[in-house]
Amino acid sequence: MKSNFTHKTSLRVRYGETDQMGYSYYGNYAQYFEVGRVEALRALGMSYKTLEEQEVMLPVSELNVEYKSPAKYDDLLTVQTTISEFKGTRITFTYTVHNESGKLVSNGRTKLVFVSKSTMKPMRPPSNFVDLISKHQVEE
Amino acid sequence: MKSNFTHKTSLRVRYGETDQMGYSYYGNYAQYFEVGRVEALRALGMSYKTLEEQEVMLPVSELNVEYKSPAKYDDLLTVQTTISEFKGTRITFTYTVHNESGKLVSNGRTKLVFVSKSTMKPMRPPSNFVDLISKHQVEE
Amino acid sequence: MKSNFTHKTSLRVRYGETDQMGYSYYGNYAQYFEVGRVEALRALGMSYKTLEEQEVMLPVSELNVEYKSPAKYDDLLTVQTTISEFKGTRITFTYTVHNESGKLVSNGRTKLVFVSKSTMKPMRPPSNFVDLISKHQVEE
Amino acid sequence: MKSNFTHKTSLRVRYGETDQMGYSYYGNYAQYFEVGRVEALRALGMSYKTLEEQEVMLPVSELNVEYKSPAKYDDLLTVQTTISEFKGTRITFTYTVHNESGKLVSNGRTKLVFVSKSTMKPMRPPSNFVDLISKHQVEE
Repeated sequence: MKSNFTHKTSLRVRYGETDQMGYSYYGNYAQYFEVGRVEALRALGMSYKTLEEQEVMLPVSELNVEYKSPAKYDDLLTVQTTISEFKGTRITFTYTVHNESGKLVSNGRTKLVFVSKSTMKPMRPPSNFVDLISKHQVEE
Repeated sequence: MKSNFTHKTSLRVRYGETDQMGYSYYGNYAQYFEVGRVEALRALGMSYKTLEEQEVMLPVSELNVEYKSPAKYDDLLTVQTTISEFKGTRITFTYTVHNESGKLVSNGRTKLVFVSKSTMKPMRPPSNFVDLISKHQVEE
Repeated sequence: MKSNFTHKTSLRVRYGETDQMGYSYYGNYAQYFEVGRVEALRALGMSYKTLEEQEVMLPVSELNVEYKSPAKYDDLLTVQTTISEFKGTRITFTYTVHNESGKLVSNGRTKLVFVSKSTMKPMRPPSNFVDLISKHQVEE
Repeated sequence: MKSNFTHKTSLRVRYGETDQMGYSYYGNYAQYFEVGRVEALRALGMSYKTLEEQEVMLPVSELNVEYKSPAKYDDLLTVQTTISEFKGTRITFTYTVHNESGKLVSNGRTKLVFVSKSTMKPMRPPSNFVDLISKHQVEE
């Protein structure tokens, strides 16, 4: 199903995240997206921590990032996360990252798979999760 | 131009790179690719450090990663890096990551742009770099 | 001089910060302390970013961390930072980190040196910084 | 008991490890020490991975680092690790880090505790580990 659930969260670029170009290192965006994703799930009513406690893991199967303008040290970034698609055992999140002056820093997408901790195989997500996300379904 | 320059380098998954799933965190692959890329350039005869000393930066404009099977703590990974395309101010690297038993862990691609440190604008790469890469040109 | 300037800031343990023990990796505390330090300086009226723009760097010369109990994924940590000593070209920060239930996770200390970007030698800090910190001087 | 078991391993400073001062970020040394520690144990005949598979964890209880001169991008560092003390449930490692020109970059120490995965309490290390380390005992 297509969803339009979206959530914004903020984070500040840490000194240790900069590289010698003076930019936030390109590898950090995976973590920025993760923060956005986790906070989006929390806003939806679903903690990722609880999901793991229910023996469900959600590893990333695909990551795409486009770098539009550099984020710099101490920049306050806004990560907007959208749960864009949800089908069977898979879920897709899309992200945009803006800086304080509203400039687009980055956009990206992650595909994730629900995996059972016991069988280590893809599984359908818990029904409470399906219910929560279904409320935000949009016409395809 | 299309190139077929390819290079293999090895690295071991560090404890600090694992996450609580017991996998190497998905964000680490940006750094694994960077190690592959830097060692590929070194094997080609071009140190990335020297490039920066010539006032040329090479920021990443696009990153794609597919996660095929998890890398675990202490796994010795082989990153194979190919300079696949080189055109104007842009260069594309592709990567495959295998573990010791030959299993595909991940593949990916990065697009990078040559940027002048002084003007902060895209620039043609230094001619010695063009010469080195031209030796590995293939028919398109 | 001895100071008692102290400041609290919060941060949440990111998934990428956990290791396969399920703890926040021991190396992350350097970054947690840095976040505490930067926010303490900001609360004092001094942005670290501004300091660097004034050609002053503040590298760490010594780090000590005691790990008292593990921080786990999604824990909301409170970092309390105190500027404990300030003398000549050197400044000492001490830290305590607690989790949401008030348990002590870690404590530590960093010593830093004011260094001139142009000469790369230790230097006295800018006078506006000295003024700000002097307001919080305590009897030795 | 005091030990003199010592081992050298090399690692190259990654681009993603630099910060905007152009130095390897001070938090990275925890990971450099970990690499040194793991390779020292491997050289001793004990893989840390195997230790964890035997349900033994070895979390760090204390970390000390002195930063003597900066490590820069692409520097090839030598981490010398010594198992300096081993008593009951505790083990202490000391480290020195030098760059290629032999300059001391950093030295440090970590104290670690053997912890049982099942009870989460400190435990005596496996006897094969004790045997291995005992061969390197020195007079106190």
